Amino acid sequence: MTGKKKDRGTLIVLSGPSGVGKSTVIAELLNERPDIHFSVSYTTRGPRVGEQDGVSYNFVSREEFEGMIQRGELLEYAQYVGNYYGTSLKVIREQLEQGVDVLLEIEVQGAATVKRKCPDAVLIFVIPPTFEELSRRLHGRATDDETVIQGRLEQALREFKEIPLYDYLVINDSVPNATGEVLAILEAEGCRVKQRLPVLQNQMEGVSTL
Amino acid sequence: MTGKKKDRGTLIVLSGPSGVGKSTVIAELLNERPDIHFSVSYTTRGPRVGEQDGVSYNFVSREEFEGMIQRGELLEYAQYVGNYYGTSLKVIREQLEQGVDVLLEIEVQGAATVKRKCPDAVLIFVIPPTFEELSRRLHGRATDDETVIQGRLEQALREFKEIPLYDYLVINDSVPNATGEVLAILEAEGCRVKQRLPVLQNQMEGVSTL
Repeated sequence: MTGKKKDRGTLIVLSGPSGVGKSTVIAELLNERPDIHFSVSYTTRGPRVGEQDGVSYNFVSREEFEGMIQRGELLEYAQYVGNYYGTSLKVIREQLEQGVDVLLEIEVQGAATVKRKCPDAVLIFVIPPTFEELSRRLHGRATDDETVIQGRLEQALREFKEIPLYDYLVINDSVPNATGEVLAILEAEGCRVKQRLPVLQNQMEGVSTL
Repeated sequence: MTGKKKDRGTLIVLSGPSGVGKSTVIAELLNERPDIHFSVSYTTRGPRVGEQDGVSYNFVSREEFEGMIQRGELLEYAQYVGNYYGTSLKVIREQLEQGVDVLLEIEVQGAATVKRKCPDAVLIFVIPPTFEELSRRLHGRATDDETVIQGRLEQALREFKEIPLYDYLVINDSVPNATGEVLAILEAEGCRVKQRLPVLQNQMEGVSTL
């Protein structure tokens, strides 16, 4: 059982409240596991300072986004604080079939849709060590005014109620800890019987005469 | 959410064919994670060279073992190559409730019983990199004659058919690799929503007024 050890790629969904540090954890994760395909979402919200089109998000107009919806090109999409966010179905399927793990960063509504359409997807919710810490981080970011921050905190409380939909809860008390937990989850998911048994069965076919 | 991060201990079941190297992987695992409680099984088979009573197994007579069965003291027991093997229920429950992970090394029949009685148990099956390698290791061990070895190889093929009962399949191509996979599985299982959500909910109770 050398070489290929799993049957197909794992679809990983990462969610968590605004300000919890998802982007930093994802950057560190892709640094450790450059073989993972990070699926860049489409959004109608404007880029923040430092965000690049095609890297952080594919930034599109409301009209373009609604065209994608109408043409059925999206695995999932949702509105969040007044903007559209969505995932293109195209590349994802191809990558998974080639055995490549695919990572999506999407919010709670989208995650629910993915779980319904792809029951094998692995859903990870990232939480702050405390709610106070989340508030502190949102204020520290200084990109949003107080009304927006309060909206995000109330949104976070609503999202916490959807955690039972997820498989794993990762605590971002430090980026190395949180990244380590996500890496462990991915390694464990790759060891699942449903992933490895088909490979083992192929290998064992010649042994049945023993 | 500092301090305690999970609700209760995880019950881990490790199985695999004779000669696959379970004992070596377990020794390395306990070296990395001395907090794990290794539940020593009871058996009626004689000790092998280097095996200590109360460490490798609790070695008991057939009469003593049958007494434990009759008094309902065993979580599971089974016969394997003519000998009884079983797990005492006593300590396990206590440890799990205190948040301690408990590791059992048991064979396939016993694992099925544990999964039925404790659906949250995590079942890991250790396989050799190839069947030929398993045969080589059993011959290399030189503690058994050819008839016993053939019996173990045929037993291994029968056990492989029960793999779908398990959650994870770990490939022992090297002890560090196999131990690393088991460590990742345990870390991931500790991140499960069902483990962490109760702890989070306790912590969030004070926030509902925000």
